[in-house]
Amino acid sequence: MSDTPATKPRTVMALITFTPSGETIEVPPGTSLLDAAIMCELDVPAPCAGQGRCGRCRVRVTSGEVERRSNAGLATAEILDGWAVACQTHAGSGPIAIDVPERKKEKVRPHGHAIAEPESLPITCDYLQNPAVRLFELEIEPPSLDDQTSDFDRLRRALGRQHGVEELRAELPQLTRLGPALRHANWKVTVALEMRDWVYGSYLPPRLLRVYPTAFPQASLGVAVDLGTTSVVAYLVDFTTGHVVDSASTYNKQISCGEDVISRIIYAKRKRGLERLQKLAVESINDLLEELQQRNHVEEREIHEVAIAGNTTMTHLLLGLEPRALREEPYIATISAPPKLIAHELGLNANPVARVHILPSVGAYVGGDITAGVISSGMSTTEKLTLFIDIGTNGEMVLGNKDWLLSCACSAGPAFEGGGVHDGMRASQGAIEDVFIDDATLEPTFRTIDNAPAVGICGSGLIDLLGELFVTGILDKSGHIDVEAPSARVRVRDGVPEYVVCRAGEGGAEKDIVLTESDISSLVRAKAAIYAGFEVLCASVGVDLADVEQILIGGAFGQYLNVEKAIRIGLLPDQPVEKFHFLGNTSALGAFATLLCVNVRREVAEVASKMTYLELSADNTFMDEYTSALFLPHTDLTGFPSVRAALADRSNGTGNGG
Amino acid sequence: MSDTPATKPRTVMALITFTPSGETIEVPPGTSLLDAAIMCELDVPAPCAGQGRCGRCRVRVTSGEVERRSNAGLATAEILDGWAVACQTHAGSGPIAIDVPERKKEKVRPHGHAIAEPESLPITCDYLQNPAVRLFELEIEPPSLDDQTSDFDRLRRALGRQHGVEELRAELPQLTRLGPALRHANWKVTVALEMRDWVYGSYLPPRLLRVYPTAFPQASLGVAVDLGTTSVVAYLVDFTTGHVVDSASTYNKQISCGEDVISRIIYAKRKRGLERLQKLAVESINDLLEELQQRNHVEEREIHEVAIAGNTTMTHLLLGLEPRALREEPYIATISAPPKLIAHELGLNANPVARVHILPSVGAYVGGDITAGVISSGMSTTEKLTLFIDIGTNGEMVLGNKDWLLSCACSAGPAFEGGGVHDGMRASQGAIEDVFIDDATLEPTFRTIDNAPAVGICGSGLIDLLGELFVTGILDKSGHIDVEAPSARVRVRDGVPEYVVCRAGEGGAEKDIVLTESDISSLVRAKAAIYAGFEVLCASVGVDLADVEQILIGGAFGQYLNVEKAIRIGLLPDQPVEKFHFLGNTSALGAFATLLCVNVRREVAEVASKMTYLELSADNTFMDEYTSALFLPHTDLTGFPSVRAALADRSNGTGNGG
Repeated sequence: MSDTPATKPRTVMALITFTPSGETIEVPPGTSLLDAAIMCELDVPAPCAGQGRCGRCRVRVTSGEVERRSNAGLATAEILDGWAVACQTHAGSGPIAIDVPERKKEKVRPHGHAIAEPESLPITCDYLQNPAVRLFELEIEPPSLDDQTSDFDRLRRALGRQHGVEELRAELPQLTRLGPALRHANWKVTVALEMRDWVYGSYLPPRLLRVYPTAFPQASLGVAVDLGTTSVVAYLVDFTTGHVVDSASTYNKQISCGEDVISRIIYAKRKRGLERLQKLAVESINDLLEELQQRNHVEEREIHEVAIAGNTTMTHLLLGLEPRALREEPYIATISAPPKLIAHELGLNANPVARVHILPSVGAYVGGDITAGVISSGMSTTEKLTLFIDIGTNGEMVLGNKDWLLSCACSAGPAFEGGGVHDGMRASQGAIEDVFIDDATLEPTFRTIDNAPAVGICGSGLIDLLGELFVTGILDKSGHIDVEAPSARVRVRDGVPEYVVCRAGEGGAEKDIVLTESDISSLVRAKAAIYAGFEVLCASVGVDLADVEQILIGGAFGQYLNVEKAIRIGLLPDQPVEKFHFLGNTSALGAFATLLCVNVRREVAEVASKMTYLELSADNTFMDEYTSALFLPHTDLTGFPSVRAALADRSNGTGNGG
Repeated sequence: MSDTPATKPRTVMALITFTPSGETIEVPPGTSLLDAAIMCELDVPAPCAGQGRCGRCRVRVTSGEVERRSNAGLATAEILDGWAVACQTHAGSGPIAIDVPERKKEKVRPHGHAIAEPESLPITCDYLQNPAVRLFELEIEPPSLDDQTSDFDRLRRALGRQHGVEELRAELPQLTRLGPALRHANWKVTVALEMRDWVYGSYLPPRLLRVYPTAFPQASLGVAVDLGTTSVVAYLVDFTTGHVVDSASTYNKQISCGEDVISRIIYAKRKRGLERLQKLAVESINDLLEELQQRNHVEEREIHEVAIAGNTTMTHLLLGLEPRALREEPYIATISAPPKLIAHELGLNANPVARVHILPSVGAYVGGDITAGVISSGMSTTEKLTLFIDIGTNGEMVLGNKDWLLSCACSAGPAFEGGGVHDGMRASQGAIEDVFIDDATLEPTFRTIDNAPAVGICGSGLIDLLGELFVTGILDKSGHIDVEAPSARVRVRDGVPEYVVCRAGEGGAEKDIVLTESDISSLVRAKAAIYAGFEVLCASVGVDLADVEQILIGGAFGQYLNVEKAIRIGLLPDQPVEKFHFLGNTSALGAFATLLCVNVRREVAEVASKMTYLELSADNTFMDEYTSALFLPHTDLTGFPSVRAALADRSNGTGNGG
């Protein structure tokens, strides 16, 4: 068809006006209101990435015609009042006015972030003798007609003569102000240098980061970031002491575009979706940088290096790399080792030439957070056969020691993070984190985070509850609730059996908090996937779980896990408790070690490239192991001697309950 | 003083409206109209950099009160009509309307730019075996569950297996589209790589420039640029043949901010002045890039490398480096070797990751254009004692051979470029470029560029005319015109003697074209400075001008120089004509060699760092030599045997004139 104006039909565009922001946009009829809102950069949450599942992208149509493809989750009164699900509601051909409800700011902070000191890291690093960033005080000979050396060469010469630093590099942003800066300081300056930049297999000469007048105070700081799918944590590090000065954390702003990595990859397919996800990742980090700067009276330009650990999807989104292939079989990353960048390239609120180290990943589902974990756990330098575990939506695990490392990831689903569970929630205020059920009365006792009125149950509480229901016999090994159990807490609602862990009113709770049989099914599937991962990992190198000398648990979830209860449900292998060690936020710790120690930067690259990745979906034995693990604690009780003994004790009436 | 609103006096701002553009700006009273225009990014010429000397920044005040500090060059009628000199006219406190006259576009092209072929360069380079940029065709194994290597590592692996290229680097802009590009091309691609990047003393691995689907045509192109103070020349080079495909030239757009480097350094002091100069430098180069791309049907992204040679001021302005210290004693550059950049950092219309090589300079007045000249002239590899000269506003010269190089610069002033000379002009259409005066009649014969009606006299014409006036006896050796000479062409106007080389009407000339005694004085000072430079350079290493084995003349001006006539006035040393060689635009040739040959890139850095710079203003003998050279041809005629012989012949009546 010819493309002349005469034959080309003129597209009637629909004008959408958003209130209260006043943004307007013309879109082709059929465009979803969510897409239009994203194009206007409006803050409409879409945790399910616009798949019509979560109902969180509610907006109100105040005038105009729209086409509603679904009203999922809306009451009829709400629909009559104009409320619509933005991702399922599409523009007609006429003008439309849309009211976007103001979002409550999430005031709540993600829970828990330990402040590390270099001494607590299993790294051997002379970070004080050989820091990543150093300050040098210089008295530079002023230029004269007899010595017309350029400003930069003069600075370099003084560094060589006064400090033995023979070579120096600089980028344009640091050179544009160099001449005036040297003259303003009357040739008495302190320079901050990046000392050893390991790039493409070799060390490059020191790099100029900043020129300060010597008379003014100077700082030599860096920031280590754990860019998690849910929360983001940053440590402010002083290179002159090697210590963490302060830390801050926030939720990842991308949550509004999808709760988990899969939803975000789907969201990235939208027009300008990837751009928005990248912007939100940068904003999340920048919020922390600003907070740390303000609280510590530090200038943006004094942050001289940044190290960031995140899973492969987070890394791709931060860099603006198309993530689609991560999700589609055969699950391929664009890059494993991100290129070295400077802060300016990403728009980070730091010294524009600050080097940004992004930790390398191993595969689409074993990311830089796991590389960080391996490094900070010390497993890459130990002789001991070690199993490292990071449980979240995915269970990532690494088996090995200083000679070899084998990793895999199993999709556990969000159950342990409270997702897809009736009263599940993240580990925040009011979450039931600890449960005990009396053998005799079958009545529960529980504790909530901050001792607040119970709101829901978080991961550790779910594991506790599952274990307690099992050992008290309320639950059988197939995960079925015994509806005949002698307790009013056991009931059937809409045909589904459930256990009421907290009744409305108890301790101020506003509603009944329950665990249903379908919640239990989700949890059992999740733990089965993780346990099957352990088994396949060990089997593929011909070792037994019992041969593992230490089990290191990283990640945010691990911080609150009770090992004995996790063993009881078959989530963790039945090994002596002393083999288990909790390491805290290993992703942040690995970023911290990378930031601090120039040797670690090299080790990180080596560890990521030597780690092997086992794709479970291509492994025939995984499905068998998974099926066997779909019981409490497992089909084969020989692998769970302590649980078998405990069950025997209980059935003999010698249990310690009560 | 406290800064509270109560005590801080409120500044009344003056609102300026510019027509016909419609731009408005509020400025403090007292702001010059030129500054206001620059802040609005309006194109008001200021060749004298706003010093009130040239009168070119004329605008018309159509309403409002202004303060005129000078009306230099304006007729009373013009002043009454509202015309004002923008740099000398300042805003009052009320609103003002200013009409900015539309500028005639300079249609004229700078004259002359030879197209070079690598064979004509005195470089030994296996540019075809070892090109800077290479294309590699690849069939990449698609990913599978058994082989989940990342896209980038997969590409790298294929390069190693299929072409033996074992390492590869990439920057973010090339990675963001990598995944979709590989899949779109169905894993059959051609990649363009920068093969050998010499940075900070070592070669880095090949760098990814572009991924093309193999089915589409690919090009491997680069551009070499001579960024001159007056004109800018660009060569489009095909890396697969090593040949120049096309070339283009234009005037440097910075001319509107100052005719010469000193005026531009002054202009850079203005608010946003440096920013504007940088923008104009980039625009000048981008105009040529666009022209070359359009004419050769090349995409912007196919320009994979750029090499730029320019003097030290041009380099500083292009990079946005503060140039002030270049002009103030002791004349210091911010950098001699510019950092390696990518096109994106400068905003050049090329592949965003194209490496930009900016040739290194030696001192504030011996720039990358001279380094380029030394490289492309072959003097850095010859055994012969060589004098290299590039004459423009400054005369830059280098003495030496493959073992040593000594350079200096002498401020000749703009006389040879037509500046400060009554009827002087650049070498463009209508310029008298060639003059002969009859011994007997004292009548001139001349030729103009393009045989157009005479408009003025360019550099080569001025040298000819000066020499002819001298040998015909109209001019004495002190530069005084003999007002008694038997010719109606010699006359005195306003007390100043002058020679009329072309009368109004002759050959269609619109006005008399003359050379005045004060013009002659400027020219003699200019040639004296250059000749004194030669003398001091030789003396400082203990050689005589006669010891010099070859004299190589580069730069645009050299292309039109008549050696014998230049010797006659004492501009060039009186040496056998066969010692002189004209090399054309050596700055562009040096950029071309740098672009083409990876070995030359290294040589350029070595040459610049080994070249010594002799500061003439710190040299006691320079002023003596200069004073001695303020005669035609020189005080000491023993240095000019051929001129002495010619003068003797003439006075004996055996001259060949007529």
